[in-house]
Amino acid sequence: MMFKRITIIGLGLIGGSLGLAIKKQRLAQEVIGVSRRRSTVVRALSRGVADRVTLDAAKAVQGADLVILCAPVLKIIDIARDISGSLEEGAIVTDAGSTKKEIVKHIESILPDKVHFVGSHPLAGSEKSGVIYSDGNLFDNSYCLVTRSSWTEKSALEKVKKFWRRIGMKVEVMSPDKHDMIISKLSHLPHASSAALSNACSKAELRFAAGGFKDATRISSSSPELWKDIFLTNRKNIIRGISELEKELSKIKSALKKNSGKELMKLLEKAKTVRDSI
Amino acid sequence: MMFKRITIIGLGLIGGSLGLAIKKQRLAQEVIGVSRRRSTVVRALSRGVADRVTLDAAKAVQGADLVILCAPVLKIIDIARDISGSLEEGAIVTDAGSTKKEIVKHIESILPDKVHFVGSHPLAGSEKSGVIYSDGNLFDNSYCLVTRSSWTEKSALEKVKKFWRRIGMKVEVMSPDKHDMIISKLSHLPHASSAALSNACSKAELRFAAGGFKDATRISSSSPELWKDIFLTNRKNIIRGISELEKELSKIKSALKKNSGKELMKLLEKAKTVRDSI
Repeated sequence: MMFKRITIIGLGLIGGSLGLAIKKQRLAQEVIGVSRRRSTVVRALSRGVADRVTLDAAKAVQGADLVILCAPVLKIIDIARDISGSLEEGAIVTDAGSTKKEIVKHIESILPDKVHFVGSHPLAGSEKSGVIYSDGNLFDNSYCLVTRSSWTEKSALEKVKKFWRRIGMKVEVMSPDKHDMIISKLSHLPHASSAALSNACSKAELRFAAGGFKDATRISSSSPELWKDIFLTNRKNIIRGISELEKELSKIKSALKKNSGKELMKLLEKAKTVRDSI
Repeated sequence: MMFKRITIIGLGLIGGSLGLAIKKQRLAQEVIGVSRRRSTVVRALSRGVADRVTLDAAKAVQGADLVILCAPVLKIIDIARDISGSLEEGAIVTDAGSTKKEIVKHIESILPDKVHFVGSHPLAGSEKSGVIYSDGNLFDNSYCLVTRSSWTEKSALEKVKKFWRRIGMKVEVMSPDKHDMIISKLSHLPHASSAALSNACSKAELRFAAGGFKDATRISSSSPELWKDIFLTNRKNIIRGISELEKELSKIKSALKKNSGKELMKLLEKAKTVRDSI
């Protein structure tokens, strides 16, 4: 097997689904799950996402050769601090956080030299949260972005890449900076616009909400706690993204003000081309 | 049966699906389909959306007691002009256009007094277009907004309401003005923001587009021709909606600039409450 013991800290949708995928692919002799909440521990055991589940993160990482941090972004950094003294020599630590620059910078300075950190961002998930929605196929055929910094150890990087591939993902390696820039456009900006769209509607109007509105606002139903951290750790890119979005909105507004079908057609056709190219 | 002959003019996704639904519910002895394009006529016949299909709209409305206009918004008005001299006395004309104020105003002035027009907007559809995607269950359990103006004839209104209910829809009656205001928020504004979001992304970034981006931009894949007309006939409401969306985006930007987790949390929580209330 690839690993002796994998410890997953944080048992939400991602942590739980990872546990199921690891067991399905037989990537570890033992999977340990860690949650801060007793109720989650009970649910995680009943969903079978780990062989053992505990509330004690520091204890759970002892003897682990792979530790995966699956908490909200800012919590990931706190957890790294809590477990740093308990990690085995040679252990690999990775994460599933949606921003990478802040996480990589802090965790590389927190963890001892004998431990290897490699940042990861599996591009999978849904607007649902909680271990009860765990799905061992959640990651299939999606991309996992893995980061390489000047501190990244080569063999650890290779092992983490192999791990995500065995989980079923397509792996791409890039710098934390590049990751945060790309993902701000593809994930954080859509989230901001989805939230703004929801907030621009009054409840009275929502009665007739149909497919278009539901699709466009679906992600604003995600966990505010999770997303607050993502937003705070990728502020500059998201601010820049919102400005670009505002520029595009004002092009549409200007075409409407001029009553120009030709300009509208150009903007809508461009959008369709972009969207259809995915 | 409710109708002797129903003529559907415009055989896209909506017109085609209506044909299938009418036949499934046995609402007419005969369904005539009309398209401007010979290729659509062939496809419509093979999908079985009508008993007969023709290129000649004026001829096709002869003997029809219900005529449904299912074309892009501005085309609906042109078609009404083309058929106005051929409609039977007492015939009811309705439509499936996504804006109502312009359509109702123009068509009421175009059609002869002996014919009754009632505006309709079935809130159903998808980003797909074309008769080949026709689906007789497309309308099930969705809302159909039917308009009442000072010219609306009461018995015609009742018959149109009954028609949509038999198709499987929940019917709500409102003024064309109110319709356009509500729908600008629930459908046209999401469309504008979806298009703007797509246009704010470069193709190079799109490679890693995942569920969130796909959901938020799905509707920008719709027909530009269809949406150009919708935008042009609901300009003021959409301009106002974009301004409100910009206000909400700038609240998020301001929270990011202040690095305020508390403000972000408030905005994301509000959005989640709105979205979850649907």
